[in-house]
Amino acid sequence: MELTATTELPHAGVIAIAGLGLIGGSLARRLTMRGRKVIAWNHRDHPYQEARQAGITCVDTVEELAQAKPDVLVLCTPLKAMPEVLAKLAPVIDGRTTLTDVGSVKGQVRDEVKAAGLNACYVGAHPMAGNEFSGYSASDPSLYDDALWAVTYDQATDYCRLLTVMDMICEGVGDRVIVLDDQTHDRAAALISHMPHVVATALANELMDTPERNIAQALAAGSWRDMTRVALTDPDRTRAMVEEDALNVSRLLHRMAERLTDMAEQLEQSAEHGDAQAQQDILDFFAMAQPYREFKAKQRQNDIVYPNRGLSIVADWRSELLESAKRGEHIVHVVSSISFEVQVRTKLS
Amino acid sequence: MELTATTELPHAGVIAIAGLGLIGGSLARRLTMRGRKVIAWNHRDHPYQEARQAGITCVDTVEELAQAKPDVLVLCTPLKAMPEVLAKLAPVIDGRTTLTDVGSVKGQVRDEVKAAGLNACYVGAHPMAGNEFSGYSASDPSLYDDALWAVTYDQATDYCRLLTVMDMICEGVGDRVIVLDDQTHDRAAALISHMPHVVATALANELMDTPERNIAQALAAGSWRDMTRVALTDPDRTRAMVEEDALNVSRLLHRMAERLTDMAEQLEQSAEHGDAQAQQDILDFFAMAQPYREFKAKQRQNDIVYPNRGLSIVADWRSELLESAKRGEHIVHVVSSISFEVQVRTKLS
Repeated sequence: MELTATTELPHAGVIAIAGLGLIGGSLARRLTMRGRKVIAWNHRDHPYQEARQAGITCVDTVEELAQAKPDVLVLCTPLKAMPEVLAKLAPVIDGRTTLTDVGSVKGQVRDEVKAAGLNACYVGAHPMAGNEFSGYSASDPSLYDDALWAVTYDQATDYCRLLTVMDMICEGVGDRVIVLDDQTHDRAAALISHMPHVVATALANELMDTPERNIAQALAAGSWRDMTRVALTDPDRTRAMVEEDALNVSRLLHRMAERLTDMAEQLEQSAEHGDAQAQQDILDFFAMAQPYREFKAKQRQNDIVYPNRGLSIVADWRSELLESAKRGEHIVHVVSSISFEVQVRTKLS
Repeated sequence: MELTATTELPHAGVIAIAGLGLIGGSLARRLTMRGRKVIAWNHRDHPYQEARQAGITCVDTVEELAQAKPDVLVLCTPLKAMPEVLAKLAPVIDGRTTLTDVGSVKGQVRDEVKAAGLNACYVGAHPMAGNEFSGYSASDPSLYDDALWAVTYDQATDYCRLLTVMDMICEGVGDRVIVLDDQTHDRAAALISHMPHVVATALANELMDTPERNIAQALAAGSWRDMTRVALTDPDRTRAMVEEDALNVSRLLHRMAERLTDMAEQLEQSAEHGDAQAQQDILDFFAMAQPYREFKAKQRQNDIVYPNRGLSIVADWRSELLESAKRGEHIVHVVSSISFEVQVRTKLS
């Protein structure tokens, strides 16, 4: 494919939302507020009265959503409802509609979209937005304030459809985007969310396994509270999330186990034999994350300004957008079909 | 030793504080506010003017603290200064003064106290109080609001001295106490603080070790922030804390590594072979900490009331007070030399 700046810039003027829960409801309200036309469907119609007052057009079936021929149709349904919704959409979705979603594991959604024969019109998406509540009554357009979305592709992804979804996110929602393949997304999500949920649960299990647990709990302070907080959330939901990304999580758990075992052995060598190499290894272990500490210290400054810079696609949009994400750049505006404005937001070293 | 309720109840009327940092300064102010006489020394005299205004008597040397013959002398100096301060105190401390401290690892302090020949007059103590600041200027009597102290013994500990320290804490400071041996304390502290600090650091190291770290950081949300927060604190201080409790930490790291490895293998067996036993093991892993979840949910209720109940020592104060702590009871008042009021505060199951 040859890219030129003269390609007409795609626009997501009409957006359909399937599922008016916390994420879908907040998205529908945000897009409406910012001038996009939104059509919505929910598996139960109890949020429709409120949604209509917010300017959202509500329809009775998911098929009607597709029949309205929106520019983008966003699946905000639970992951487990995905196959059924996709099966209903497949016969009726218009060829010009781009399908996307908000799921937190992209490989599995891709497989389900492929199974429904819809991969040609699909672009994956995952907004970093949410809180501990659920349902339309908890929805809030400000949930998307300054949020980042991961937008994912595979080898079949159409670039114009990617730009359509980016228009919805950057201009429609007012958010930032990084573009990456499904596998890179799921590896990263396993590292910063799915695997740590298992670690937090293992810590809570270790507490339950000690006969002195009531004493240990008595001594617990902020560090323990923070490290086990995610173990307190619904364990069935955590388990489902971990199982959806099972092999990425298991690979990272093996790596964590190795780090902890190494440190255990070094502490023994140092304490029992005064081993100099072990002492150096312990120093190195605690020094390693220094760039992360410095990044977080900088991030905590309230007055931090991220200047915009340009990014132009030269030849291969997939690898060039992925490399941009690896450099810590977030896309904030689509300028033309081959040029973007980016901000360096997450550069650890 | 035969215990009778007629033994005169020890009283900590005059308390000496060595070290006017955050912990020592707050303690000195709290005790003064609540009517105890406090004499203090600090290795530099810059907090003396403020301390004197708060009603604290300040002296120029640590020897003068001992020569004032306080009922209790509390070491609030940094752990690394302990041997030097103990060496200065040993020749001058009065036989009736009880020595205690506020260190977070009790085994090591005990060894240093023994090396100074002061174990006969020593009772270990560790208040669960603190924040991210330091120094007298950050001190605040409310740091000790509704706080719990662990008070520790060994086979040489004098019961009357233990009661003196408990009088200082329960009546002088207005706090709660659990009584346990040094080893039980250090095992529990390793579980809920020292080991999790290593785990948080290992998570941050895993992030630094991935080429896609800038992408992973971009996707990071609340769970990652909470689980790595303690890895952001001064790594040298964390390392020192972990090394002081090295063998307890290493034992727990091996156990954590085993839990994570087991879970990794179960996820592989389940994802690749649909193994039913692995699926059951995964369910069990996520279900195990349910009593912890229920305890935390109950603890979050603001209107929770803990009724007082009585606890009487029958024969062996060491084992009976330890068993009370294991039942999740916290001592809130010393009623007589063999009877206490307790509240069940940390009972996980």
